[in-house]
Amino acid sequence: MAIRLGPNQYGKAEVRVVAVDRSRPAHTLVDLDVSTSLRGDFTAAHTAGDNGHVLTTDTQKNTVFAFARDGVGSPEAFGLRLARHFAGRHDWISGARVAVESYGWDRITVGGRPHDHAFRRDGGEVRTAVVTVDGDDVHVLSGLHDLVVLKTTGSEFWGFPRDEYTTLAETRERILATAVTARWRHLGDDLDWDDAFDGVRTTLLETFAATHSLALQQTLYAMGEAVLQRFPAVAEVRMSMPNRHHFLQDLSAFGLDNPDVVYHADDRPYGLIEGVVLRDDVPPAEAAWQATPGFC
Amino acid sequence: MAIRLGPNQYGKAEVRVVAVDRSRPAHTLVDLDVSTSLRGDFTAAHTAGDNGHVLTTDTQKNTVFAFARDGVGSPEAFGLRLARHFAGRHDWISGARVAVESYGWDRITVGGRPHDHAFRRDGGEVRTAVVTVDGDDVHVLSGLHDLVVLKTTGSEFWGFPRDEYTTLAETRERILATAVTARWRHLGDDLDWDDAFDGVRTTLLETFAATHSLALQQTLYAMGEAVLQRFPAVAEVRMSMPNRHHFLQDLSAFGLDNPDVVYHADDRPYGLIEGVVLRDDVPPAEAAWQATPGFC
Amino acid sequence: MAIRLGPNQYGKAEVRVVAVDRSRPAHTLVDLDVSTSLRGDFTAAHTAGDNGHVLTTDTQKNTVFAFARDGVGSPEAFGLRLARHFAGRHDWISGARVAVESYGWDRITVGGRPHDHAFRRDGGEVRTAVVTVDGDDVHVLSGLHDLVVLKTTGSEFWGFPRDEYTTLAETRERILATAVTARWRHLGDDLDWDDAFDGVRTTLLETFAATHSLALQQTLYAMGEAVLQRFPAVAEVRMSMPNRHHFLQDLSAFGLDNPDVVYHADDRPYGLIEGVVLRDDVPPAEAAWQATPGFC
Amino acid sequence: MAIRLGPNQYGKAEVRVVAVDRSRPAHTLVDLDVSTSLRGDFTAAHTAGDNGHVLTTDTQKNTVFAFARDGVGSPEAFGLRLARHFAGRHDWISGARVAVESYGWDRITVGGRPHDHAFRRDGGEVRTAVVTVDGDDVHVLSGLHDLVVLKTTGSEFWGFPRDEYTTLAETRERILATAVTARWRHLGDDLDWDDAFDGVRTTLLETFAATHSLALQQTLYAMGEAVLQRFPAVAEVRMSMPNRHHFLQDLSAFGLDNPDVVYHADDRPYGLIEGVVLRDDVPPAEAAWQATPGFC
Repeated sequence: MAIRLGPNQYGKAEVRVVAVDRSRPAHTLVDLDVSTSLRGDFTAAHTAGDNGHVLTTDTQKNTVFAFARDGVGSPEAFGLRLARHFAGRHDWISGARVAVESYGWDRITVGGRPHDHAFRRDGGEVRTAVVTVDGDDVHVLSGLHDLVVLKTTGSEFWGFPRDEYTTLAETRERILATAVTARWRHLGDDLDWDDAFDGVRTTLLETFAATHSLALQQTLYAMGEAVLQRFPAVAEVRMSMPNRHHFLQDLSAFGLDNPDVVYHADDRPYGLIEGVVLRDDVPPAEAAWQATPGFC
Repeated sequence: MAIRLGPNQYGKAEVRVVAVDRSRPAHTLVDLDVSTSLRGDFTAAHTAGDNGHVLTTDTQKNTVFAFARDGVGSPEAFGLRLARHFAGRHDWISGARVAVESYGWDRITVGGRPHDHAFRRDGGEVRTAVVTVDGDDVHVLSGLHDLVVLKTTGSEFWGFPRDEYTTLAETRERILATAVTARWRHLGDDLDWDDAFDGVRTTLLETFAATHSLALQQTLYAMGEAVLQRFPAVAEVRMSMPNRHHFLQDLSAFGLDNPDVVYHADDRPYGLIEGVVLRDDVPPAEAAWQATPGFC
Repeated sequence: MAIRLGPNQYGKAEVRVVAVDRSRPAHTLVDLDVSTSLRGDFTAAHTAGDNGHVLTTDTQKNTVFAFARDGVGSPEAFGLRLARHFAGRHDWISGARVAVESYGWDRITVGGRPHDHAFRRDGGEVRTAVVTVDGDDVHVLSGLHDLVVLKTTGSEFWGFPRDEYTTLAETRERILATAVTARWRHLGDDLDWDDAFDGVRTTLLETFAATHSLALQQTLYAMGEAVLQRFPAVAEVRMSMPNRHHFLQDLSAFGLDNPDVVYHADDRPYGLIEGVVLRDDVPPAEAAWQATPGFC
Repeated sequence: MAIRLGPNQYGKAEVRVVAVDRSRPAHTLVDLDVSTSLRGDFTAAHTAGDNGHVLTTDTQKNTVFAFARDGVGSPEAFGLRLARHFAGRHDWISGARVAVESYGWDRITVGGRPHDHAFRRDGGEVRTAVVTVDGDDVHVLSGLHDLVVLKTTGSEFWGFPRDEYTTLAETRERILATAVTARWRHLGDDLDWDDAFDGVRTTLLETFAATHSLALQQTLYAMGEAVLQRFPAVAEVRMSMPNRHHFLQDLSAFGLDNPDVVYHADDRPYGLIEGVVLRDDVPPAEAAWQATPGFC
């Protein structure tokens, strides 16, 4: 009975680096949470406690801060710099994964004008990037999570099969709300990442708004399809969309009707719709998704 | 040794009511988390399990939903309707407290125009209201929490006393960041609450940005003072402001300088500055603040 | 229109100090989250940014770690040492509040015997202490939160008044579940704190279990009363007990009965019962409770 | 440019079902959080909003409650019943995944004896099970998360490579602490699941305690290896172990030594060690792990 080490990785998670550019009167800042992990031959550390191959997680953290000294740029670009550095560091390191969360800050308006150095955190929504170097291959995923959206009309749900456990009524009118997690894989590693992100995000939002929804699955697919149609350099989109139920509250016991006015926002349980929309003519790249939380 | 029941209250917490107004093509919605509590003579329930005086928390919840049928309006106005209803319900109920959290939604822009019925949650920051009916008195607190703000310059910290446990260096340049929790008490219960809220919030933001800070205490006081100066109907402001430390990262071990560029955003521990700014000529109203979380 | 600074405090929140005693083969450890705050004359810091009175929060943090070097003992004892130190530090400091959370660790059992230096975190429940020095007075609150308890029978709820918004059915049999937050104020500041804590905690648990409940209010009062009866040095108990609803699931649509077998544990909204049980013959001590979260 | 739907699933997440057995004087309860998802041909829902194949998530929820009526048993057994039911429901459903979290409750001791129907939640640690039906195959993963463990000695870290970003000192004595997430895949689907779980959990704990650690990787591997050695029916173990850093606090500025006494428990960043330990002679089963959060 041979027992052995299978796939493994290690690294430093959640390095909170903030970099400020004061070179002009109007300062800018980037606010990141960076997690790095290394892959390769770390067997001796596992089986014998021999750390000769272990580039420490403390060193990985230091590297993140040192690299920020020269400017950070987009999450994707910073991830690429770091992942290539780590993967090329020693011959026993075969790959690296760098995951970045990016938090947005808006300028505070004072007297009608955006302030030079005072900012308000744009809460909730988070931009993400995951860069994976796998031997000679480089993969870039852009993404976002906690993009919470809602439609007050334009959503139906009917035509589903019924069995002995089905009690749900069909509806031609409901609130549709979800918190979008999406990640999309790029063909290529040399884009204007900020432009690309803005374009995909706008497409996701506009498509959510414009789609008359007969199912949350339909909305998810339409969002992914629109991204692929408009952005030829995107190979696939993976999405996870919880159905944040808003139940019409029954007020009849109080002698009141409720013509789609009063809803109860329910926490748990919730529907969870997950899926991939992809191009048929692009080869898959499972290495790009290894260890990335979420569906698939 | 006489043992007895002291102050007490009970109610329904976190009723998540969403109300939609579809009366015009451009829908609007309010998204609230409402918590109610009742005060009065509930001794028998405590000492004998006699529920004859207990207007159940389930009934309180139902009332919230029923009242939303006629339109909700501002958090303060909804709280006033509910608190007055509960406090006047039975002669053994002497008071009621209604606390409301309000979540903002922005219209999604499609093709450059705001959409009629598709929204994006404006994350992070939360608007609050606490209405207390206490016998014949009515108190209204407006507020907000998780308003996260940051300045990349314009903050110093020096001149503090040193003792044998002091290691902190003085600084003429640091990042100042905080998550503002503020509550302000109104004189009067018949305002344009939405206008009043917007005015105070703008004042808090502008004052944070404009104040050259020698101490977070100074910034806190300036913010409260500005609110009181501009809004005569506000009697006092209570604020809690954690110092979200951004430490300049020492890069010298790597042969790098760090001229206020790279920072580490630290989670814990954190400074916590709390205080009240008030008008001298207004009588205090402790009943307005009973059971409200936060400082004092 | 005179505007001025009202009550205020500042300090360092959430200092996570872990102290290990290796003086015997069987190690012990204490794991604390310590928050300190100072009160006194800090007006100049607020109004002029003059920090001459500001014993920095960084110094407060350093003091916590330095004091841990000599051994920590109970949360109450550690809080007393720190609060007295801070309050006596300068003549402009009139008081100090030290709040401590304490996390429990159990020894891991190996081969049937408790291990000397390997521990498992006893999750969920947290022990608390709040020490306040207010001029010449010293107050000690002990407490706990997230003590989650449940009874599968022995709980009824009926006899409540009905109005036009009441739909709840009466019940002679329900699950009763809550997450107890309790704080109790001691007469005196020189007890065996660990013994005292264990005694009160056991009393709370045993009384919850043994009380046939007609209302959660009744259970709350019985728990507080039992503590006061058994522990003469406790002056008052303040409790906050959310009603963690477990609703009997209606299975009739599936041709199934449900004789108190299948329940749905619901998140929100929830009932929230809060109250104080106290001795009549003891003077109140509001300073003991200033800035302490929770009811009253 | 053909765009199409890739892998997808949908279901109901976080159904909180509590089942009580009152058939004997000493009641028992199970407290579960159940998430179901279905796989198969749901293309029309995505591309055309045609729900003819969509067994609704509401029906899935109802099924969970209905199945609980006959008794729940272990998380694994309940997951197997549900997954087989769903996967066999319609010819267009090719698979089902049922993930269960199980929360433990201990009897409250009253007068030295365990109470018949009063319980205390055993907080923190969570037991998990994931059952996947994939066509004719059935896979069962057992697991746990938030098992927080710590050693006050018996942990070293040295011998790692140094580069220009390395500042970490070597140590022969440190605190080792982690929150174990582990999942193990069973060969077979007809075990005494509760016995099996207890055995593996005990092995994980004992091995953590007994291993003199030169690296957290070594501890992880030792834990997985011990499980495979003792339990022939376990094919592989996947673990994720954050390094919960406890840094020795430097007290020299205060004239104090610190001979491994006072530590600061740090939140972020943290090392994260992840890996798989497996048997060489067992075929892999990636379907067992599809959509399961965590490493790999």
